[in-house]
Amino acid sequence: MSAPIIAIDAMGGDFGPRCIVPASLSCLAEIPSLQLILVGQAPLLESLIACEKIAFDRSRLHVQHASEQIAMDDRPAQVLRGKPDASMRIALDLVRQGVAQACVSAGNTGALMALSRHILKTLPGVDRPAMVRAVPTSRGPCHLLDLGANVDCTAEHLYQFAVMGAVAAEALGTESPRVALLNVGTEEIKGNQVVKQAAALLQQALGLNYVGFVEGDGVYRGDADVVVCDGFVGNVLLKASEGLVTMVSSRIETAFARNPITRLAGVLALPVLRRFSQEIAPARHNGASFLGLQGIVVKSHGSAGREGWQSAIQRAYAEVSEDLPRRLSGRLEVLLRQM
Amino acid sequence: MSAPIIAIDAMGGDFGPRCIVPASLSCLAEIPSLQLILVGQAPLLESLIACEKIAFDRSRLHVQHASEQIAMDDRPAQVLRGKPDASMRIALDLVRQGVAQACVSAGNTGALMALSRHILKTLPGVDRPAMVRAVPTSRGPCHLLDLGANVDCTAEHLYQFAVMGAVAAEALGTESPRVALLNVGTEEIKGNQVVKQAAALLQQALGLNYVGFVEGDGVYRGDADVVVCDGFVGNVLLKASEGLVTMVSSRIETAFARNPITRLAGVLALPVLRRFSQEIAPARHNGASFLGLQGIVVKSHGSAGREGWQSAIQRAYAEVSEDLPRRLSGRLEVLLRQM
Repeated sequence: MSAPIIAIDAMGGDFGPRCIVPASLSCLAEIPSLQLILVGQAPLLESLIACEKIAFDRSRLHVQHASEQIAMDDRPAQVLRGKPDASMRIALDLVRQGVAQACVSAGNTGALMALSRHILKTLPGVDRPAMVRAVPTSRGPCHLLDLGANVDCTAEHLYQFAVMGAVAAEALGTESPRVALLNVGTEEIKGNQVVKQAAALLQQALGLNYVGFVEGDGVYRGDADVVVCDGFVGNVLLKASEGLVTMVSSRIETAFARNPITRLAGVLALPVLRRFSQEIAPARHNGASFLGLQGIVVKSHGSAGREGWQSAIQRAYAEVSEDLPRRLSGRLEVLLRQM
Repeated sequence: MSAPIIAIDAMGGDFGPRCIVPASLSCLAEIPSLQLILVGQAPLLESLIACEKIAFDRSRLHVQHASEQIAMDDRPAQVLRGKPDASMRIALDLVRQGVAQACVSAGNTGALMALSRHILKTLPGVDRPAMVRAVPTSRGPCHLLDLGANVDCTAEHLYQFAVMGAVAAEALGTESPRVALLNVGTEEIKGNQVVKQAAALLQQALGLNYVGFVEGDGVYRGDADVVVCDGFVGNVLLKASEGLVTMVSSRIETAFARNPITRLAGVLALPVLRRFSQEIAPARHNGASFLGLQGIVVKSHGSAGREGWQSAIQRAYAEVSEDLPRRLSGRLEVLLRQM
């Protein structure tokens, strides 16, 4: 494979290019075979690049000017009609043209999904792309989808998500991934109509390791490698988990700051806790993929810092290396035909 | 107020009377003004009581025989028709008759909800009772509902849950509780139709401190005192949080067990971490109330141990002390009239 080229929407996210540029440059320094195209206000990007002291081969970094940018509160419908020169649109266009193999953005999620569908189109048989991300569990990563792209889903949508999630998990290294539907109980009678119908579809799917329902706690116990739900539920689960980890970390800090003895214990425990925090930190697992498109798009958390941004780029890099859309397309054809 | 009498379904839960009896007895020892009626197989319960060495006034403990019990996989519809002498049914009947002021059960949730509605009836204006529980946040407890009693909800149901949650939070000590709807974003355009319609209803509600949408992370940041969602979402959020806490605790243990130095740090850090674990442990917050019934019913986690069971009884005790159904009835009348 030739060196992967990733197009970066450098204007998105809560911190914008001031965070994205240095984080992107450190990715270049870390991954020797990577090439990046930073898309955005060229003069601003060039000045930020000039400020950085990271050593890397400048021939692997390109800047593509875009005069506009999409705001976090722009509505998807407006974005489709307006802002023809937005950085997000230009970055996706580079993927469509084959100039880049993936796009990474920390911008407005709804706009990114709408533009991705409009510009890249979905794979044959896919009604709606889904957002997927790996979350850490007691038994390794679990690929959770959808994470918010589709707040209302039919059983057929969940079936498609299950197929896409399984193929993605396999491409990223899990052999015969265990696929489950998220539900309020593991018994057959539990759940709403959509989940029950999706279960009926999945039970008949050949070539898919469907293991039934999992409950919320089963996700973190590692009861499945791929967990499927509608975007409302997945979004709430993911964000609540991030909020809970933040609260837990801050409570641990407070507990150790209580008095001189606990502070001493804290000093000794610090390296262990830091290691643990890094393992579990949302930044380490940042980067949600849009599955089901004719191209690779990775959405970074809007508030991602340098480490989070690097995770998102690495996710895109791994998908390019595995040629995920092509693999998806092949497996989808077989599995969706059964429906 | 005379001494509250709580009817205990002693046959439910994963561990049954062998766990429930000793945990109930230690509650009697801790709360001097409490009286309990243990409902179940009388000979078994009596022999378990006889085995315990906890000192308490036996006149405060009664045993009520019930020849049947409801299994965890009994369907709610079957339960309504059959098993007239089930411990759960008898315990609820004691509340209906006014013999007891509350019922606590760790049995089959669907069956408990169906029987509660059938035996106790809902309060005027309430379509469906909701399950609510307090979760710990960075700013004190947050009352989350529904937790699984209603997997499909209309906007009107969410409105009723919001009103009931606010009244319960107030009764349990939060002044003018901030009420929010759980959503995938905080902007007005976010979410599905049901959530948007519920927001429109809540914006017009007088006498309710409605603060808008919160996302999953906002729950643990303490952005609201009452968070409202459908039972599918709430159940997933709660169980995922429990699973995540369990995983985090076990990872911390593993991190400290890595080598002699980390083990030493672990010994020093242990009291701090234990204190922290107790604060955050699901057991400490065990006990979900069914709101909207003409009586108090508290559902304990099926796998609750002694500490968890005590939390559930204490929750019931607090609701009896505050005469929650009567308070709910009064406020509901005013707030639901606005709809």
